[in-house]
Amino acid sequence: MLPSVSEASASALAEARAHQDRLTKPRGSLGVLEEVAVRLAGAAGVCPPPMPTPAALAIFAADHGVHAQGVTPWPQEVTVQMVANFLAGGAVANAFAAQVGASVTVVDVGVAADLADAPGLVHHKIGYGTADLSLGPAMTSAQVVEALEAGISVASSLVAQGARCLITGDMGIANTTASAALICAFTGRDAAEVTGRGTGIDDEMHAHKVSVVRRATAALPEEPMDVLAAVGGFEHAAIAGFIIGGAALRVPVILDGVIAGAAALVAAALSPASIDHCVAGHRSAEPGHAAALDHLGLRPLVDLELRLGEGTGGLLAYPLVCSAVRVMHEVATFDSAGVTDKPV
Amino acid sequence: MLPSVSEASASALAEARAHQDRLTKPRGSLGVLEEVAVRLAGAAGVCPPPMPTPAALAIFAADHGVHAQGVTPWPQEVTVQMVANFLAGGAVANAFAAQVGASVTVVDVGVAADLADAPGLVHHKIGYGTADLSLGPAMTSAQVVEALEAGISVASSLVAQGARCLITGDMGIANTTASAALICAFTGRDAAEVTGRGTGIDDEMHAHKVSVVRRATAALPEEPMDVLAAVGGFEHAAIAGFIIGGAALRVPVILDGVIAGAAALVAAALSPASIDHCVAGHRSAEPGHAAALDHLGLRPLVDLELRLGEGTGGLLAYPLVCSAVRVMHEVATFDSAGVTDKPV
Repeated sequence: MLPSVSEASASALAEARAHQDRLTKPRGSLGVLEEVAVRLAGAAGVCPPPMPTPAALAIFAADHGVHAQGVTPWPQEVTVQMVANFLAGGAVANAFAAQVGASVTVVDVGVAADLADAPGLVHHKIGYGTADLSLGPAMTSAQVVEALEAGISVASSLVAQGARCLITGDMGIANTTASAALICAFTGRDAAEVTGRGTGIDDEMHAHKVSVVRRATAALPEEPMDVLAAVGGFEHAAIAGFIIGGAALRVPVILDGVIAGAAALVAAALSPASIDHCVAGHRSAEPGHAAALDHLGLRPLVDLELRLGEGTGGLLAYPLVCSAVRVMHEVATFDSAGVTDKPV
Repeated sequence: MLPSVSEASASALAEARAHQDRLTKPRGSLGVLEEVAVRLAGAAGVCPPPMPTPAALAIFAADHGVHAQGVTPWPQEVTVQMVANFLAGGAVANAFAAQVGASVTVVDVGVAADLADAPGLVHHKIGYGTADLSLGPAMTSAQVVEALEAGISVASSLVAQGARCLITGDMGIANTTASAALICAFTGRDAAEVTGRGTGIDDEMHAHKVSVVRRATAALPEEPMDVLAAVGGFEHAAIAGFIIGGAALRVPVILDGVIAGAAALVAAALSPASIDHCVAGHRSAEPGHAAALDHLGLRPLVDLELRLGEGTGGLLAYPLVCSAVRVMHEVATFDSAGVTDKPV
């Protein structure tokens, strides 16, 4: 069912490292950005890697049955209201996307309301929110498959429309609870360590949220697909598919925050090579996100205490990724520019 | 001599903070970027602050007499070679500027060679490199004034040409030695704490560099202008002027790395309000840079272990600054979008 994904090309990685050292800059002086450019060369299998332009943000929107447990002060209807805000161009993700020239597509994979057709909205509704993960599996196996396929399909379709970089986005009240549960499950960390305050909760609600996550992850199945069904959200499954779908087409995927991090753990379990095609856009203020990135071996590019989701962290990282790749295309070498290299 | 600079407007700051809280996002969820937008509102004296577009990078190039002390493995001629590389469009700064749509101006404030006229090159040569700061004052008082005025003039001229954001850049072999000395002098830190490996030196050369900085800062004058003359570079004085010149016109200045950090310490000493108009673009791998930013109370936006200079860190930060300001202009409020705010 899953498309096959190529691992990073060892020869392109080596060629990219050697190329970095010939450019008119002290060796290693671009720090983490050199590694990003090298990583994308490996992912693309060619040096220099193609410029990751244009970019497409896909915001996967879904609701969560666990909302009923009182894990957030926001009413569930905010999910559908924010979808309308995205479609009207009024959200932060829209402003950030406009800044960097990325397109915005909203994918309904499970909002708990019927959504009218609108430009920029893609319908892949799998249910009116997941079941309550604290009472039983959040999704059926069939729903998980459907959501994964939705994500793969969105990735393929955006690439067919010309996108050469995919950015993950998400919207769904209570989705940090499901994310924390997935991160617990895949990293083995304790619920208290990875369960954050989401978009803003008090101590009492936070303690309750931790207990919900702890109970939900007390006895989990072995298989990644079953874990995903047990405690994930439609958007986690869809974003995992989106990652794998982009990776299969050798188009880099910039991961947003904690929801994407949780989804990337799923993608890594299902298709380890898919992570070779990912760049961690940012590190969210959610503690579980750092745990997920650690587990994946990814270093975030932006670290500014964002905790908004929507793809905002991924969008901020996008020009950094472009800059890193552009260096490989445009910067002169010591030889070509007649600049003296330092003695080594 | 120095133009007068307005402090941040308290009313614009307050209005910007209140506006942030009305936008369709959880309060504080944009983390550090909310503070950037608020800061620029205060600096501009209006909320929302104007979009900081277009941006202009000025690369202040100069040589350093202390090069003779063997503080770097790079030959001095690399300064003039890199100036040629900037003018030909082949350096990393050019690639990053192209990525973010910033113009590039190279300002010769003291390269140790005659430079032919070229598009994008501004002549303000004050000397063929500074004197050796380890043997006596690096600059005369008259040279310091001339370099400050050059920086002010470049800022005014770029703003007159339409720039609404200034980005500092620098080029000069051995300039991290002078920067370390300035940072010692203005922060009171020890030479060993703030003297780094620049663009790449071994342990032995590093120990020697620390001893050069320690000796040069053992007995410094009191007045900031005299300190600058004693251990600074032409580009440090010019960048301090550039900061003050931009601030006087209420145009925000994005600071690059350790050279800009050292220059900003000078600007802060001469015109404390000028720092209200600055944003720290990034934190360089040079240890002195963190010390300078701490002293200035600035938090860097990008932290990716860059140690290249040229303005590269400032250029990477520029789209983040634009994104932060754009939010203030384009994002809907809870009221206007019909999104339910959470109970507070």
